[in-house]
Amino acid sequence: MRDLRARWALEEAGLRYEQHLLGDGEKETPAYRAWQPFGQVPAYEEDGLQLFESGAIVLHIAERREAGESLLPAAPAARARATQWMFAALNTIEPPIQNLAAIDLFYANEDWAKARRPGAEDMVRTRLAALATALGDEDWLADGRFTAGDLLMATVLRILRHTDIVAEAGLGEYLARCEARPAFQRALAAHMRTFESPQPALPLFVDTDTK
Amino acid sequence: MRDLRARWALEEAGLRYEQHLLGDGEKETPAYRAWQPFGQVPAYEEDGLQLFESGAIVLHIAERREAGESLLPAAPAARARATQWMFAALNTIEPPIQNLAAIDLFYANEDWAKARRPGAEDMVRTRLAALATALGDEDWLADGRFTAGDLLMATVLRILRHTDIVAEAGLGEYLARCEARPAFQRALAAHMRTFESPQPALPLFVDTDTK
Repeated sequence: MRDLRARWALEEAGLRYEQHLLGDGEKETPAYRAWQPFGQVPAYEEDGLQLFESGAIVLHIAERREAGESLLPAAPAARARATQWMFAALNTIEPPIQNLAAIDLFYANEDWAKARRPGAEDMVRTRLAALATALGDEDWLADGRFTAGDLLMATVLRILRHTDIVAEAGLGEYLARCEARPAFQRALAAHMRTFESPQPALPLFVDTDTK
Repeated sequence: MRDLRARWALEEAGLRYEQHLLGDGEKETPAYRAWQPFGQVPAYEEDGLQLFESGAIVLHIAERREAGESLLPAAPAARARATQWMFAALNTIEPPIQNLAAIDLFYANEDWAKARRPGAEDMVRTRLAALATALGDEDWLADGRFTAGDLLMATVLRILRHTDIVAEAGLGEYLARCEARPAFQRALAAHMRTFESPQPALPLFVDTDTK
């Protein structure tokens, strides 16, 4: 449910946005595929600029002038350190977590999944132990303040909420701190409302109001 | 071998750099872990700024003033489209490719790997088919020019060079076009020389010459 990443970033940045739900089969249309080549959500549009990839959308929102320093510091070195945690979340932490989650959620009854699961869980625990060490006693990953790196990391850690692994890695308080942010709460509520709509199975994309 | 990404970016940008090989066990030292929390390579240092994560390092190099527009266009919309392909390479294409490569290179003799391989290969083929459609008849992924998105995508596709999958997906010419760039050839040669050194098993990090 990567649309939550875009929503949360928009809420942190204080930007208004509209959401559009994709109709049944719309992910497969040439028009949507020209926008989002992999047929996934979220996708994002702003004043004629169409983007896909949740990480790129969050980075773009963070860099919008209207976002100020809400998601990334302005100072170049601090900004680079925050950006590095965005990539760490998506390229170092999410792949093993996604691998474990796929085993648990999609393949749990298959023999190969049962045989692979202990190794897959070990890989997650190794990465999260290193992440917990890097965080140390700090509240946030970079330069003592919440950044887009924390935003993406929290959405990645949430993939494991069917397990106790995040808490056992010593990252439970960190994740709770991220989730306690008012912007996250607003984004989550909007995200959940989508599933309560008359079209509960439909994904969505985000469209900012660029007035 | 993600150090190749940083080397290639530095070569495209025309920046000088020094490399330092990590000694045996150095990845586990507190000093290196404070720099690279996951004990991997590459890591990057510039004028007191220490970074890790190959994607973040490539983005930082691309944004350096001295790099001009060698890796990212200056116009904001074109820049966002290029950045989106950086994230697509690392968060949409690399995870299934890395999953398949791990099965082939590390777990080939395990029963779970044999049972899982067809499904893992299908996931890769599905993603690469969508990528080939997105590329279409263009030479490059974004705005008709080589960008850091192509750089990262090519290094991700190279992970599959023990198979014919990239060519079969219709992406062989694209990858060859990326690899034919003089900057790639210089980076690859430097990368390979590392393995011919008296310390062949050692990873490396990249340290730019910022004078």
